[in-house]
Amino acid sequence: MNKTVVPHDLKSIGVVGAGRMGTPIIGHLVRRGFATRVCDLNAARASAVKERGAQWAADPESLASECDAILVCVGFDREVQELLAEGGSLRKARPGAVIAILSTIHPKTVQSLAKQCEGGGLHVVDSTVCRGGEAADKGTLLSFVGGDAEVVERLTPVLRAYSSDVVHTGGVGTAQVAKAVNNLILWACLVADHEGLALAQHYGADIEALRRALLISSCANGPLEKWGSQTMAWAEDDMAIVAEMAAEAGIALPQAGVNREICRALKPRRYKLDSYGR
Amino acid sequence: MNKTVVPHDLKSIGVVGAGRMGTPIIGHLVRRGFATRVCDLNAARASAVKERGAQWAADPESLASECDAILVCVGFDREVQELLAEGGSLRKARPGAVIAILSTIHPKTVQSLAKQCEGGGLHVVDSTVCRGGEAADKGTLLSFVGGDAEVVERLTPVLRAYSSDVVHTGGVGTAQVAKAVNNLILWACLVADHEGLALAQHYGADIEALRRALLISSCANGPLEKWGSQTMAWAEDDMAIVAEMAAEAGIALPQAGVNREICRALKPRRYKLDSYGR
Amino acid sequence: MNKTVVPHDLKSIGVVGAGRMGTPIIGHLVRRGFATRVCDLNAARASAVKERGAQWAADPESLASECDAILVCVGFDREVQELLAEGGSLRKARPGAVIAILSTIHPKTVQSLAKQCEGGGLHVVDSTVCRGGEAADKGTLLSFVGGDAEVVERLTPVLRAYSSDVVHTGGVGTAQVAKAVNNLILWACLVADHEGLALAQHYGADIEALRRALLISSCANGPLEKWGSQTMAWAEDDMAIVAEMAAEAGIALPQAGVNREICRALKPRRYKLDSYGR
Amino acid sequence: MNKTVVPHDLKSIGVVGAGRMGTPIIGHLVRRGFATRVCDLNAARASAVKERGAQWAADPESLASECDAILVCVGFDREVQELLAEGGSLRKARPGAVIAILSTIHPKTVQSLAKQCEGGGLHVVDSTVCRGGEAADKGTLLSFVGGDAEVVERLTPVLRAYSSDVVHTGGVGTAQVAKAVNNLILWACLVADHEGLALAQHYGADIEALRRALLISSCANGPLEKWGSQTMAWAEDDMAIVAEMAAEAGIALPQAGVNREICRALKPRRYKLDSYGR
Repeated sequence: MNKTVVPHDLKSIGVVGAGRMGTPIIGHLVRRGFATRVCDLNAARASAVKERGAQWAADPESLASECDAILVCVGFDREVQELLAEGGSLRKARPGAVIAILSTIHPKTVQSLAKQCEGGGLHVVDSTVCRGGEAADKGTLLSFVGGDAEVVERLTPVLRAYSSDVVHTGGVGTAQVAKAVNNLILWACLVADHEGLALAQHYGADIEALRRALLISSCANGPLEKWGSQTMAWAEDDMAIVAEMAAEAGIALPQAGVNREICRALKPRRYKLDSYGR
Repeated sequence: MNKTVVPHDLKSIGVVGAGRMGTPIIGHLVRRGFATRVCDLNAARASAVKERGAQWAADPESLASECDAILVCVGFDREVQELLAEGGSLRKARPGAVIAILSTIHPKTVQSLAKQCEGGGLHVVDSTVCRGGEAADKGTLLSFVGGDAEVVERLTPVLRAYSSDVVHTGGVGTAQVAKAVNNLILWACLVADHEGLALAQHYGADIEALRRALLISSCANGPLEKWGSQTMAWAEDDMAIVAEMAAEAGIALPQAGVNREICRALKPRRYKLDSYGR
Repeated sequence: MNKTVVPHDLKSIGVVGAGRMGTPIIGHLVRRGFATRVCDLNAARASAVKERGAQWAADPESLASECDAILVCVGFDREVQELLAEGGSLRKARPGAVIAILSTIHPKTVQSLAKQCEGGGLHVVDSTVCRGGEAADKGTLLSFVGGDAEVVERLTPVLRAYSSDVVHTGGVGTAQVAKAVNNLILWACLVADHEGLALAQHYGADIEALRRALLISSCANGPLEKWGSQTMAWAEDDMAIVAEMAAEAGIALPQAGVNREICRALKPRRYKLDSYGR
Repeated sequence: MNKTVVPHDLKSIGVVGAGRMGTPIIGHLVRRGFATRVCDLNAARASAVKERGAQWAADPESLASECDAILVCVGFDREVQELLAEGGSLRKARPGAVIAILSTIHPKTVQSLAKQCEGGGLHVVDSTVCRGGEAADKGTLLSFVGGDAEVVERLTPVLRAYSSDVVHTGGVGTAQVAKAVNNLILWACLVADHEGLALAQHYGADIEALRRALLISSCANGPLEKWGSQTMAWAEDDMAIVAEMAAEAGIALPQAGVNREICRALKPRRYKLDSYGR
């Protein structure tokens, strides 16, 4: 893909966090012609970042002052808060800058931070990514974006660099809600797929043939299609957010309750059908 | 669709049970040129059957003696047993006839009946159907077939009359295993979809927009695609079979265990997100 | 304990099934002065029966004709049905005989058999036993009895031979309902005890000290008191009956649904806290 | 009960939080002759406190400087942290003072605060209370205490004022572990009791008679004994702590996972058997 002219106002993009998702995103941004600056607590990631054509920044603060938009790709709620709460290094961003939270965290954290940052002229939106690492590599992620329509519109060309689909889900925080729901259903499906295929295996079925047949049946689902490739790295964290949201909402989600526990035990033995339920 | 010449040996087809699935299947058989005879305990269904161009038979016994193949479309394990156990009316079928069990029942019931019928020269196979009533109407069902390859091959043109996909799953009983697994996952997905969307609704999401967005995401699943249209008529019976199979297999399926119970309460309030989990 | 005069009309007692519960019950009956006849499919049990002072009968039929009351202590629903359905060997019992079903089976099976046996002048009641094998050994079982008050009154001295408590629960079948509810709660407690103590162990607690402390706390429960001694031999069968009853009742029991599955996996690793939930 | 001489070193006792548990505890302390000072954010509670013979303190700080021991009876983890973290008002307590946390919070919060307070010469222990409000009224609570043996010994006479049983569970934090396990099992039992009795009701059982019978059976449990009287006020908060502890421990507690959700829906409809599972 050739570098193309960027015909919009967000030209200089910062990325905080060069992990499994951040790193391929950086590559896509550079390829699309964005001036990309990156920082990560782990200095060992600098070379991978530079290889992709981005600049390495010593810390979030130095990055903040030079970017039109900043993508926050850190892992945890606490980290996002440290970056954006009062005194946080991203508070040093230019007035008018757009700060997009890609991390999967609680919707209320995003809403609270967005409100706090308003005074400083920073536009905080949540912009969660679905479809996993392989889609990140290919630039075919699905991005849910929550924020004011105008800000989302300005940000969209940036998201399109790594997303084949961008869905504006509503106000700030709604992209986290959409992501949480996606995760709730995603892990439910993966557990169900394990239960179904483990049962089939006991009855002597050819699992791979059955899996392909089920993919054209009424029970087809994403995790069954990707069978064998999920790491479940974030399943527990995802389900902890879901549990907290259900508690706040005051509604009982019995299947999600049991799935959270099953995921914990399943992660180290995923795809090992022989040991499921024994 | 024009009536076409049937270039194979199974020309006269009997259908036992003219319910939600049997009735459209009858129509497709007739359209494909099969001489179709039908019976149902409920005599009131005779007119609908005749309208579709099939002959009405007074009882399974009279039908049995005139058909090359018989499709059993009754609802329950017990009914299938009554038809095929010693002294059952379908035991009167011609030697060499193929008897296909479309009903969702326990795999072992099929295997036992198949063995019992062998002596009389009857070929019993299981030929379960997936994708639901709408696909039955359109003739786009998915058929899983379990039985000897030669018998399955002879039967396939009959199944193609109403199935856009036919998968030979293995020996007798394997089509029931495949169907049970499909059902286990199907109802798990529907419950998960309810939990996810009920949570989203509490957080103010536009449910229909979210649903469409999730359909292009990693959690996409069959029931989410068909949201709003499932009757859940058979969900409990499906899950009872799954529970029995898991007990026999000696493996714990905790999610299926809780799903079975949730389905029971969910059926009358399905798709009513406001009441979920309260 | 000396043999005492039996001042009531049921003097000759038959016991069908000399297993874990039947065998100690036989001993108690003999000690209380009842003429006791016993049969079991397993002829190897004859010597244990004779040692306890009871007579060995070749089969249920020969026993049936000589007893005032018969206690059915077999393991499964199917066995009870074979004994009492039309043509069953206990149908040969004397008119006026009381037949007490101690086995844990479905309430409706008992009710149906009781009705069928009425014509022949047989009084079928259900008389389920709680508190387990150790209580059977000591003669301190709890008996729930379901049947007509008059019949129950006649039977009570027999039950008192091995039960320190006898509770008349209502009409035929109600003793099975009481037993099913007891089992549902019993196994729920045992699972909860495992979950609680496994969690405590991870946090370094002295499990035995904690268990004793919890026994004087608000969460005290039977299985916690008997910790370490339950075989769980019948847990799965118990929960299968509960599942069927819930399905018939049309109510969702999500905890029981998940407990049934957990019990299956727990049985071989019960009391092994290190492996729980991993 | 007459006021008696207090023959030990902790004579002046502070209580922070005069809620459902704190208020009766205050009464027992006064009756045992302890000079008792109380504060609560809700000034309206001053009169109830004074009626019981205790002194009202304007705030925790003023109370802290005058007490040998302080009982923390607030509701939430956050409140305990605010009182005891750096700069918190209870940091003003006299060197050598014992601070007992009665609130149900995460074990690690207690351990962390205890460590932080060591430098200032404050002895922080956790001293959780079981058996509920009625036992608090009667002074028959069960206290679990976690801390150094010497400190626990000094504190014990204070606890004995309102506890008929005091169990030293080990080092700081262990009383919270014991309480968490108690709660996990307690709510599991209450859910199981609902499921069992709801099932029994459908089968026409006399629920109160059955409940009494079950109390002498193998499934007897605390909540069944207290049937009808629990508020479930803290059930959700209790189960949230359990969920967090299980996640940290890395073990799956599937029953607790589903119980947490059931408790949420059950609370407003507890003891209403007709609506359970529908």
